Amino acid sequence: MTSTIDAGVCGFIGLGLMGMGMAKNLLKKRQHHLIIWNRDTGKARDLATAFPGRVTVANTPKEVVSTAQVTFSMLSTLEASAAVFEGPDGVLAGTGPSTAIVDCATLTPERMAEMATQVEEKGAIFLEAPVSGSKGPAEQGTLIFMCAGDKALYERVAEDLDAMGKARYFLGAVGAASRMKIVVNMTMGGMLACFSEGLGLAKAADLPLEDLLEILDGGACACPMFKLKGPHMLRRSYDAAFPLKHAQKDMRFAVELGDKLAQPLPVSAAANEVYKRARQQGHEDDDFSAVAEVTVHHDKQVNGGAANGKAGRA
Amino acid sequence: MTSTIDAGVCGFIGLGLMGMGMAKNLLKKRQHHLIIWNRDTGKARDLATAFPGRVTVANTPKEVVSTAQVTFSMLSTLEASAAVFEGPDGVLAGTGPSTAIVDCATLTPERMAEMATQVEEKGAIFLEAPVSGSKGPAEQGTLIFMCAGDKALYERVAEDLDAMGKARYFLGAVGAASRMKIVVNMTMGGMLACFSEGLGLAKAADLPLEDLLEILDGGACACPMFKLKGPHMLRRSYDAAFPLKHAQKDMRFAVELGDKLAQPLPVSAAANEVYKRARQQGHEDDDFSAVAEVTVHHDKQVNGGAANGKAGRA
Amino acid sequence: MTSTIDAGVCGFIGLGLMGMGMAKNLLKKRQHHLIIWNRDTGKARDLATAFPGRVTVANTPKEVVSTAQVTFSMLSTLEASAAVFEGPDGVLAGTGPSTAIVDCATLTPERMAEMATQVEEKGAIFLEAPVSGSKGPAEQGTLIFMCAGDKALYERVAEDLDAMGKARYFLGAVGAASRMKIVVNMTMGGMLACFSEGLGLAKAADLPLEDLLEILDGGACACPMFKLKGPHMLRRSYDAAFPLKHAQKDMRFAVELGDKLAQPLPVSAAANEVYKRARQQGHEDDDFSAVAEVTVHHDKQVNGGAANGKAGRA
Amino acid sequence: MTSTIDAGVCGFIGLGLMGMGMAKNLLKKRQHHLIIWNRDTGKARDLATAFPGRVTVANTPKEVVSTAQVTFSMLSTLEASAAVFEGPDGVLAGTGPSTAIVDCATLTPERMAEMATQVEEKGAIFLEAPVSGSKGPAEQGTLIFMCAGDKALYERVAEDLDAMGKARYFLGAVGAASRMKIVVNMTMGGMLACFSEGLGLAKAADLPLEDLLEILDGGACACPMFKLKGPHMLRRSYDAAFPLKHAQKDMRFAVELGDKLAQPLPVSAAANEVYKRARQQGHEDDDFSAVAEVTVHHDKQVNGGAANGKAGRA
Repeated sequence: MTSTIDAGVCGFIGLGLMGMGMAKNLLKKRQHHLIIWNRDTGKARDLATAFPGRVTVANTPKEVVSTAQVTFSMLSTLEASAAVFEGPDGVLAGTGPSTAIVDCATLTPERMAEMATQVEEKGAIFLEAPVSGSKGPAEQGTLIFMCAGDKALYERVAEDLDAMGKARYFLGAVGAASRMKIVVNMTMGGMLACFSEGLGLAKAADLPLEDLLEILDGGACACPMFKLKGPHMLRRSYDAAFPLKHAQKDMRFAVELGDKLAQPLPVSAAANEVYKRARQQGHEDDDFSAVAEVTVHHDKQVNGGAANGKAGRA
Repeated sequence: MTSTIDAGVCGFIGLGLMGMGMAKNLLKKRQHHLIIWNRDTGKARDLATAFPGRVTVANTPKEVVSTAQVTFSMLSTLEASAAVFEGPDGVLAGTGPSTAIVDCATLTPERMAEMATQVEEKGAIFLEAPVSGSKGPAEQGTLIFMCAGDKALYERVAEDLDAMGKARYFLGAVGAASRMKIVVNMTMGGMLACFSEGLGLAKAADLPLEDLLEILDGGACACPMFKLKGPHMLRRSYDAAFPLKHAQKDMRFAVELGDKLAQPLPVSAAANEVYKRARQQGHEDDDFSAVAEVTVHHDKQVNGGAANGKAGRA
Repeated sequence: MTSTIDAGVCGFIGLGLMGMGMAKNLLKKRQHHLIIWNRDTGKARDLATAFPGRVTVANTPKEVVSTAQVTFSMLSTLEASAAVFEGPDGVLAGTGPSTAIVDCATLTPERMAEMATQVEEKGAIFLEAPVSGSKGPAEQGTLIFMCAGDKALYERVAEDLDAMGKARYFLGAVGAASRMKIVVNMTMGGMLACFSEGLGLAKAADLPLEDLLEILDGGACACPMFKLKGPHMLRRSYDAAFPLKHAQKDMRFAVELGDKLAQPLPVSAAANEVYKRARQQGHEDDDFSAVAEVTVHHDKQVNGGAANGKAGRA
Repeated sequence: MTSTIDAGVCGFIGLGLMGMGMAKNLLKKRQHHLIIWNRDTGKARDLATAFPGRVTVANTPKEVVSTAQVTFSMLSTLEASAAVFEGPDGVLAGTGPSTAIVDCATLTPERMAEMATQVEEKGAIFLEAPVSGSKGPAEQGTLIFMCAGDKALYERVAEDLDAMGKARYFLGAVGAASRMKIVVNMTMGGMLACFSEGLGLAKAADLPLEDLLEILDGGACACPMFKLKGPHMLRRSYDAAFPLKHAQKDMRFAVELGDKLAQPLPVSAAANEVYKRARQQGHEDDDFSAVAEVTVHHDKQVNGGAANGKAGRA
């Protein structure tokens, strides 16, 4: 037996790297009919084809929101989010007293609070629900949802979140979930910078980097990120899973949040500057593991200056 | 059938937190007779009692080295190592042409090279073999050995290392293993500082820290260290598994190694300063997770100054 | 002989620590009649009394702007500036085609550009003119003006700026002057943090701090700031000449500007975190030299933990 | 009337950039006969020629020390100092009960203490006396002497120090003066890094760097170092007055001293890493103002990567 919601119409906006996997899991594990919108209509039509009779492709975000009982939104940048939220065809234009919005984007706490207020002023309800996890977990349904805002809505969509993720947390008023996401990404960015400095020091000391990866992977520091990124960093291959400019943006958000709260973050601030140097060197659109291009000195043999700089070496 | 070495006499010096587990694994998994020495003789006698007929308690380190075909040494500090190595009753005094030393301590590359030279000047052979892993892995035989020095000795003790550890690496001339160990511990110290700043920012933002631990443990940053240390850090319980002063010493070694190699390490250097602040605040002998006492502001409600400091909070 | 402007009516808004000295210099060195407004009307009346027949006290900022040929504005915070600029009685409400605004506040480049646009949309002209120098130079007429925006207005008020300052620079389009001011204050904040760490290291090493001040003052690092602040820092007396929260705000602006420009600033970012720690410890409203409360460990004798932390001392 | 010492024989070892000016001032302002030694004998002979009848050129440091009543030593590196101090022709070999050594080099406190002990074991007396000031002040006799060790010797050479410098301080037991010197150079190195980041941010923001130099020189941050180095940094001309590798060595000494004293130095440590990056880039032998090559991004127009990195610029 399915609940009214379960059998009802569910909206989904944003079928990017993350959103596509999430929408598919909703379709596979739940009985919803989905009404969807994506900037690139082709992707939306592909999804409708893959799940015949289960999906309606809307012409505008407004149409999605005004039709669905609950709408999930998964947009990757502040700009994309704003473009879809505002305007005559946007989410807000379609929002009425019976609307329920679950926004899974990673935005600032301030922006989330602003959107929530605008939605609530129309009598609707809002849940912020940024996720931990990238493309793989989105496809496998193993995301982690950090939620804040309308508690009743959180409970209403619990089974939907469980279809897309392996865990979920309710953290309080809108903004709290974005703050938690910022904390998580700050920790992640700092860790990768430390790992990257480890590679840099090992390289400078002529130690075998493959062995370092194995040693780390066998000990207390072993984590999926090092296992995944390490080999790519040794090969200097930085296809973007998580673009460096986005990772650095989250570091910046964290340092700014620390500023508001008078919370010093000296290590994370130092890491932030390293990511900024990577941007300065042109790695904005590479994966954030391209931080290794700043911390690992690959060219020491060929670079005269560097060789000179190593004169003091024992 | 056992090899000559296998059935032979093996020396073991240093039965501390790490050494005791290592010696027991040698006794359990190999057929060696062990000749042992420990500053605290009681521990040595306990081991002899636990393995009747298998263990001889020596009166001096010199006696161990001059009797055993291969001697393993596991001493926790530079001072302890020097005290046992030098002097009329020390390791060096017992070293002769047939001696083989495997030193598992974490020292500087310079000190290891110095010891190796002194041993080699007596016609003996030397392997440096610092480990990744603490008390638990030592007991479970899951250490990782980073080895450098005499390659033939490395091969000769391969089965012994495998009895105590799950992996081993040969990295080149003496010094290389200590350098690798420094890189590993620098990465670890930096990571824990980043994690600790994550806790600090979450605390300042009034986010539930237990949830943060779970979220991190479910994602790309999940690692045994966070899982082990995190709950203790929330309870502010810092019984020393790895004393902060030792962790900071390794960070210092790393920054100094970077200095010799003209390798900048801005994030690790920032983390080093945070550990130094923890020392300044009196946490030298606590576990290195006491870095959280610097990065997490526990007293914000009761501290007038801090409350004042939070005036700018949104 | 005086020019039309010289003999004309000049507006002045904001008679705080800086503005009062500036207005007095305008009255002393120029022939202007001043129309003034200040939130605290008492100060405005005092000025009118001190210069009989030369000063009119307006009821609103709007009245100042709509009467004067050129209006100088000197407000200390973004909030004070916004309060005076906006609203039915504000600067913008009084702005018309013949209005000329010279804003001497330290704001963000973005805010300055926004204000300029609003003023220009009414057909008026705008010059941003933040200053280097504090209360003393304002009284002595030795400020330095960093100007950007309307070049003709810059030339028109040249003699006025020279009455209040000893130097002036025209730097380009609106925003450039605020950026220059941010660069100057970042450098200043970083320098004071370095100086403060020098005091901290000297203190920890039991060196006489008074001698350190003299030695620095006799060498290549001698600067008015160290000479002025140093003795106060030794006495731990932090009456606010430049409040720490404002100094840290400027450091934050600088780090954010670096972020926009992909310009890493690792030393300034580290200094920023030290100022944030000072805020956390309750020094927001103290002078920014209270950064010494973070970097100098005054209580080492009495603090058991600290004494413990110094165990390694030679 | 001159004292016995004044009319006596004074030794001087080391006629480099600093020592030559110092020795000349001793000859000009005091009545001493000088017995001198320099690795490059030509310089010693030049000095003897310039002051006929006043100078004896010795064949070895030992000869200087065993002849002179007081010997000043001014050697630029730890290596040069050790080479002159030790060996059969060295300072120590010539030291006897009537010897008095004033060592003006910048060494570590530990090395100074070691030398003092060796000298004192021969019944002689020792004063450490490192200086603040470079070639110019040495020539002009405006150095600042930081002294520690034998107080009576300090008083005996007071007039000599005053001939070479404008100020002198007695700071306690041997080591204290070297520590003070380290504090001074750490402050200086940190300040120059902050200044250099100011130039970098101004450059990235397209602000006129010449104006920035003037603005800083007109305000609270004005110091001889910025005035001297600033224009060279804009021209990227880094002839070494104070080689970067020596400046970075002093930063390292400072960070290590902080380590011994459990004194965190986050800003100076960050600056140290920036100087290390400058070494990595090959600027070891340039003036320490070459730190600007790390902090100022000169090639933004021509470097494709950098241009890309600036995509986010407003």
